[in-house]
Amino acid sequence: MSIKKRIYLDYAATTAKEIGNPSSIHQEGVKAKKKLDEARRKTAAFFGAQAEEIIFTSGGTESNNMAIFGAIGASGHAITTTIEHSSVLECFRKLEKRGLKVDYLPVNKEGILELKTLEEALRPETMLVSVGYTNSEIGVVQPVREISKLLTIIYSKMSFSGKLLADQPLSHLAKSLSSTPFRNCKKPFFHCDASQAPLYLNCEKETLGADLITVDGHKIYGPLGVGALFIRRGIKLKPLMFGGGQENGLRPGTENVPAIAGLAEALERAKKNREKESKWLTMLRNFFIAEIEKVIPEAILNGSATARLPNNVNFSFPNKEAEFLALQLDAAGIAVATKSACLKNERESYVIKALGGDSRRATSSIRFSFGKDTKKSDLEYTIKVLKNACHFRTKIF
Amino acid sequence: MSIKKRIYLDYAATTAKEIGNPSSIHQEGVKAKKKLDEARRKTAAFFGAQAEEIIFTSGGTESNNMAIFGAIGASGHAITTTIEHSSVLECFRKLEKRGLKVDYLPVNKEGILELKTLEEALRPETMLVSVGYTNSEIGVVQPVREISKLLTIIYSKMSFSGKLLADQPLSHLAKSLSSTPFRNCKKPFFHCDASQAPLYLNCEKETLGADLITVDGHKIYGPLGVGALFIRRGIKLKPLMFGGGQENGLRPGTENVPAIAGLAEALERAKKNREKESKWLTMLRNFFIAEIEKVIPEAILNGSATARLPNNVNFSFPNKEAEFLALQLDAAGIAVATKSACLKNERESYVIKALGGDSRRATSSIRFSFGKDTKKSDLEYTIKVLKNACHFRTKIF
Repeated sequence: MSIKKRIYLDYAATTAKEIGNPSSIHQEGVKAKKKLDEARRKTAAFFGAQAEEIIFTSGGTESNNMAIFGAIGASGHAITTTIEHSSVLECFRKLEKRGLKVDYLPVNKEGILELKTLEEALRPETMLVSVGYTNSEIGVVQPVREISKLLTIIYSKMSFSGKLLADQPLSHLAKSLSSTPFRNCKKPFFHCDASQAPLYLNCEKETLGADLITVDGHKIYGPLGVGALFIRRGIKLKPLMFGGGQENGLRPGTENVPAIAGLAEALERAKKNREKESKWLTMLRNFFIAEIEKVIPEAILNGSATARLPNNVNFSFPNKEAEFLALQLDAAGIAVATKSACLKNERESYVIKALGGDSRRATSSIRFSFGKDTKKSDLEYTIKVLKNACHFRTKIF
Repeated sequence: MSIKKRIYLDYAATTAKEIGNPSSIHQEGVKAKKKLDEARRKTAAFFGAQAEEIIFTSGGTESNNMAIFGAIGASGHAITTTIEHSSVLECFRKLEKRGLKVDYLPVNKEGILELKTLEEALRPETMLVSVGYTNSEIGVVQPVREISKLLTIIYSKMSFSGKLLADQPLSHLAKSLSSTPFRNCKKPFFHCDASQAPLYLNCEKETLGADLITVDGHKIYGPLGVGALFIRRGIKLKPLMFGGGQENGLRPGTENVPAIAGLAEALERAKKNREKESKWLTMLRNFFIAEIEKVIPEAILNGSATARLPNNVNFSFPNKEAEFLALQLDAAGIAVATKSACLKNERESYVIKALGGDSRRATSSIRFSFGKDTKKSDLEYTIKVLKNACHFRTKIF
């Protein structure tokens, strides 16, 4: 008998026979498994990590939930900031109800978590620190590398001499140079939500020094419905869901191989194009900020002008209602956001409020986030429309 | 200023601007929201339900986890069967560790849960009954409608007269006809994993009488990475994950609109083609079973020959090692499964064991599952290959 074609009699495993179920033992399954392995290697390479340190999830929200619920339970102490994404904050709020002690640290006026603030909040029993690499609303970039260094120093088993820190911007640590405050305590896990970062910032594990790093497909020109979590070797997380042994027992369910392959590809491309894209968008961003400040002098830039994603601009337009302004822009063909898309039921932005903003500023913020198709002429047009909208008298307050 | 084109400045919400984030307020977001709403209506129609009774998830495993962890906690009593999918069983095992009492009910030799067995296991404090509509390995169809009727009767607040039951195959209930055993107790939620059912069986909520029904995209010619859970109106589940308020606060994360639309479309098609497909595949199935029994007389059909999915055939071939046989078939171009793809680390099938099978039978079972491209000639060829493989003496035991 010669084989002319494949006969697929495994529709119960998956009807997507051209894709295959990576857990199946036949050729279709083996092919799917190979693709999955390759995607895992690529994703690991993006983090400068090993393949076994990567778990695929259904997206950034699940990765954040997995990191937080997986790493800690209902007791002990954890630290995050007041400006984290809702998929981080809500996990902590839930754990707080169960008994976990949580410090939600304030950021400074620029939106940055100061190391001093973090240092003062650390306790011997702190089990998890979760700080987003960049803020999704105002695009500020947190000093993630310095945070992980601070944790290493504070929880180090050795005493530190001044030398080790000589080249590190941790001058306020002077007081702990010759002694480590929590010398016999376990260093907390450090989780970093990097969902908005891969296109513009280095996300390698050694650069960030984080133990758990979240990325999301559809934020980086990859597919929807897929994300990944880097889990540093040696860390055992508790799973969120139960079932088949997929993803090392941590994330059951048939692996979404095409989406996973798409995520891996998107991460690879992000790294490749990062420098060029960042340079170009930083130029556009600075132009846009300068122009807005010129033509709408009452506008307030939210978040640091420099420690900021190349593609994010966020302004408050006092005396304007953000949603109304966004709809005016929309009518003129321009799609912008008021606050995080994941916060539809609240009128004020808690992120803007955290910058020390009043209600006016927190209800009048508009986020402009750029991407690969953004042109300077688009921004020039946007500025014209904005100027008209802001100077035409439709005061809400 | 005339609008020539859309200017998308919301890459931080989603880089997939042609799809849009349904939570965004601009046109791209509104379009995505419309598609999502339409998919929800279609999915609801499939269940004969209302749109607000549908939650979209990342797949069948998540739907099962959401139903079980969402409906019950660490106390009380729950009932399932020994042959459920791992994404059901493992949830109960986890809850059992936390303190929940769980009965894993046996099935009969045909693989069917007998109503009498269920009736005897029910308790006043039973909070959840979870029985899969069809078994993924042996394709047996459970008497789901009768199970829900039994629950209604046992936990009814009224006394029942014989009349109500006259047309119902619940004759063993005679003893409870004039009194209801758990008259003042809350009826348990009834969860039904229907992942393998939509292509061949009616899944309407009133037909099944279930409170929670799981479906999965990639089992029904829909996309991978998407599933749904029907949640009967009035039932409040606890969420598995936390974050944005998407999916009525029950399932955070940017909705995977293209996959959700694909699932809705697949469900609609499943319903439309169900009768025709079932008829054709039942014919093929019966032919295949009869032929195997003829040419390989030692083969044992696993599971009922009649209360069975039209597309499932599962035989044990005593004295053969299932994996070896599957690889022989694979080499001949035929993809079959040994046991559930979600159970890669176990050699024996717990489903076959539950039928009263010994180790030999449980390690020699092969699942043949058919689909829309399966041809009679494929099956004839498969039988030839099987016959050769079985009668060529390569005994393992």
